[in-house]
This record gives sequence, C-alpha cells and structure tokens, in this order.
Amino acid sequence: MANWFSRKARRTDAPRLRSRSDEQATTKVDLHEFTPSLTEFLGRATYMQLMIFENLSYALSTAPTTAAKTAIGRAAEESIVRHRALAAELARSGASVVASMEPFVAEVDEFERATRGADWFEVVMTCYLAAGFLDDFYQRLGAGLAPEVSKRVIAIYSDSEGEVLLAEQLQHAIDTNPRLASRLAMWGRRLVGDTMLLSRSALHFSDDHKSEEARVEPVFTELIAAHTRRMDALGLTA
Amino acid sequence: MANWFSRKARRTDAPRLRSRSDEQATTKVDLHEFTPSLTEFLGRATYMQLMIFENLSYALSTAPTTAAKTAIGRAAEESIVRHRALAAELARSGASVVASMEPFVAEVDEFERATRGADWFEVVMTCYLAAGFLDDFYQRLGAGLAPEVSKRVIAIYSDSEGEVLLAEQLQHAIDTNPRLASRLAMWGRRLVGDTMLLSRSALHFSDDHKSEEARVEPVFTELIAAHTRRMDALGLTA
Repeated sequence: MANWFSRKARRTDAPRLRSRSDEQATTKVDLHEFTPSLTEFLGRATYMQLMIFENLSYALSTAPTTAAKTAIGRAAEESIVRHRALAAELARSGASVVASMEPFVAEVDEFERATRGADWFEVVMTCYLAAGFLDDFYQRLGAGLAPEVSKRVIAIYSDSEGEVLLAEQLQHAIDTNPRLASRLAMWGRRLVGDTMLLSRSALHFSDDHKSEEARVEPVFTELIAAHTRRMDALGLTA
Repeated sequence: MANWFSRKARRTDAPRLRSRSDEQATTKVDLHEFTPSLTEFLGRATYMQLMIFENLSYALSTAPTTAAKTAIGRAAEESIVRHRALAAELARSGASVVASMEPFVAEVDEFERATRGADWFEVVMTCYLAAGFLDDFYQRLGAGLAPEVSKRVIAIYSDSEGEVLLAEQLQHAIDTNPRLASRLAMWGRRLVGDTMLLSRSALHFSDDHKSEEARVEPVFTELIAAHTRRMDALGLTA
C-alpha cells in the first residue's frame, strides 16, 4: 500500500499512531465484570461495525479524488471484513445474525445521526475518531468474553491499517487548507462525548453504581488517551 | 450464510443462476485479440469495480431492513475485495494504482449516472444485472492477458455469492409486491444497452472493423444469454 501514495510525510517529528495491539499491551484494568452476554456483545458490535462501514462507504463515494477513494477503500474493506467476521461469530454461536442486531439498531442509528459530519472532512474525521474509539472499546470489552471466543474477537479488531490511511487523508487535507484545523479540532472534541456515551451503554452495571463507575473510569481514561493521540497525530488539540 | 435467511424458495422449478465458472466453461470464442494492455485492462477494471462497490454500499445504506443490509454487506465485501485484488495486481505490475484508474474515471462515472436507479429496488437491480454483466465480461477479457496474470485475474472474478444474495433480495421484493415485476423488467432491459456499450469501449479494435465485429459478436451473445438467465431467475422477461 505504501507506494500508492507519493506524498512525503511533512512532519517527521509528529506523534505517531500506535497500533491497536501496542495499546492493548498497556491496559491495566479490564471490563471483565461489565461484559454483556455473548449474543448481546456480538449483536451490538456487529451492527455498530455495519454503521462504521456505512460511514466509510459514504466517505468513499463522496471523496474528492481517486487517490482518496482508493485509500478509503482499504479502510472500508477492513470494516466490512470485521463486520462479517463478527456476524460469523454470531452464526457460530447459534444465534440469528439479524435478530441479534435488531435491539441495537435504534441506538446505533441515533449515534450515526448525531455524529454525521457536515462535509467530507468531518465525515472522514468521524470515521477516524469514532470508529477508532469504538473499535478500541469493543476490543477491550471482548477481552471479558469466554476465553476461546474472546481470543477470536480480539483478533478481529487487531488490524488498524485503515486508521492510518484515514489519518493520512486528514493530514493531507489540513496541510492543503490549514483553516480546516480549528474546525476539525472542534468536531473531534464534539465526537468524543457521544462516542463515550454509546460505549458506556454496552456495559452491564449492577446495583452498586458508584464503586463500579470508579472501576470503569481508568478504562475510559485510556480510551480518551488513545483519542488524544489520534488528534495529536493530526496536530490538533484534543 | 444460508442459515441467515429463513425464507423458503417459492418456485423450485425456477431457472437457477449458474456460477461464473460454469459459464466460463461454455465459452467457444475468446476476446484474446481485442485485449488491451495490462495497465489499461487493470486500470479500467479496478475503477469499474470501485463504482460497483459504491453502488452496493449505497444499496446497503438505504436498505429497508437489517436483513437486507446484512445480505448486501456480503455482496459489498466481495466487491471491495475484488477491487483491492485488482489494485494489488496493478501495484505488482509496477504501475501506479491511482494514475492507472484516472483515464477511465469520466467514462465509468458517466455510466454510473446513466444507470442510477430511481429507488432502492432499481438500485439493487443495477447492482445485480450491470455488475453481473461487467464482471462476466472482464473475466472473459482477462483471459486474453499473459498466462500468469490471466489466471489470477480470472480467479479474482470467480466468486459470485454476492450475485445470488442480490437475486434473493429482489425475488423477495417481487414476491412481496408483484407490481414491482414489470417496472424492474423494464429497468433490466434498459440497463443492458448501457452496460454493453461500456463493455465494448474496453475492446481494442484495429482497422478491419467489420470482420472484427463479427468475431466479437458471439461473446456478446453469450453475455446477453447470461443476462437473460439473471432476469429469468427473478421470473422477469429479458
């Protein structure tokens, strides 16, 4: 892929995106005790990934150049392959793929509406930041599933080449038109709230909310740190 | 995949879609002498597949049910994987992926505009018929490339699970609303002309047009027969 793009990196000292597996290694807390049932986990994750794919394919269709279309094509492929792998896990567990997704359609569609960008750059930003955050979150949450399926689910989320390609597109856009930076920074800050809320809704809390919140907090601190790194990678303030 | 859909086949005597490899076996004529250069072939095929993918992802995004979204997701995956495999062949040949696609952007985009369905059913019909025809055509045309790359290109076009899933969606729509049948039949007849013209534009003719036309004709006769089978599979008159 690297040779598809002749654009040289402008800022060699820029913060680098870490791969999802590097980040995973630094996790100090897990979400084990808050993990929903396998069907609920997969139903939500599978439909969420379909929404992420729809955003990417919209970004692809409306891309300003053939080069941008091609780069986003790689990210879209990663996402649809991920969606299908999650759906295959649902089928493997004996659950109906479609029926397992249905309960989450309204919530995920509402998130999509709330985070829909006003132009192509914001659309790509949503693909980059919200999908990055949600995929990180679901990989962590998947660690709480039964060992065998957990291993497979974590592997499904391990590719993050698409994220790097989206960052390149955004970086190129900001380099070309520096006035985009402040608008995209604001959009990035707006996205993080909705994305956190959607993530939290997947967690199963029992009665003792207060002490549970305290145990969940470090996970979100790490997820937000990863979000900040994604913003930094574009030279934007999170 | 089969167990994702509980709908029983209504007409057990309906014409069946043949797989692309069955059809390939019946080819009596080839397009060898009209095959463009490798870069031209791949550049056009790669961008064309991106257009097919965009149509599918639009059909997915606007699908009326989660079940339809999921089925079209499989077809979209097949298409983006095909696009990326063709792009990888371009890269392997040493050509720039993006630059090789550029000369065909205007022509393919114009085809997309001309064959854009007025509603979801027509959009899916375009995905089913035009993509089926074009993929058949490119597989045949690819047979005229140098042996090694030709084998790989033919393999890239060999999956046709997506086509079967699109036919199921259309069949279901027609069963549910029989008034759709005549409109979709008309749309199917309209599509075939534009699709043939786009295919022919990929062929390299020399000076002796008349005798060349005669040699090409049997190939289009076979491609139209495959188109007729796709229409028959939905109980529509081609």
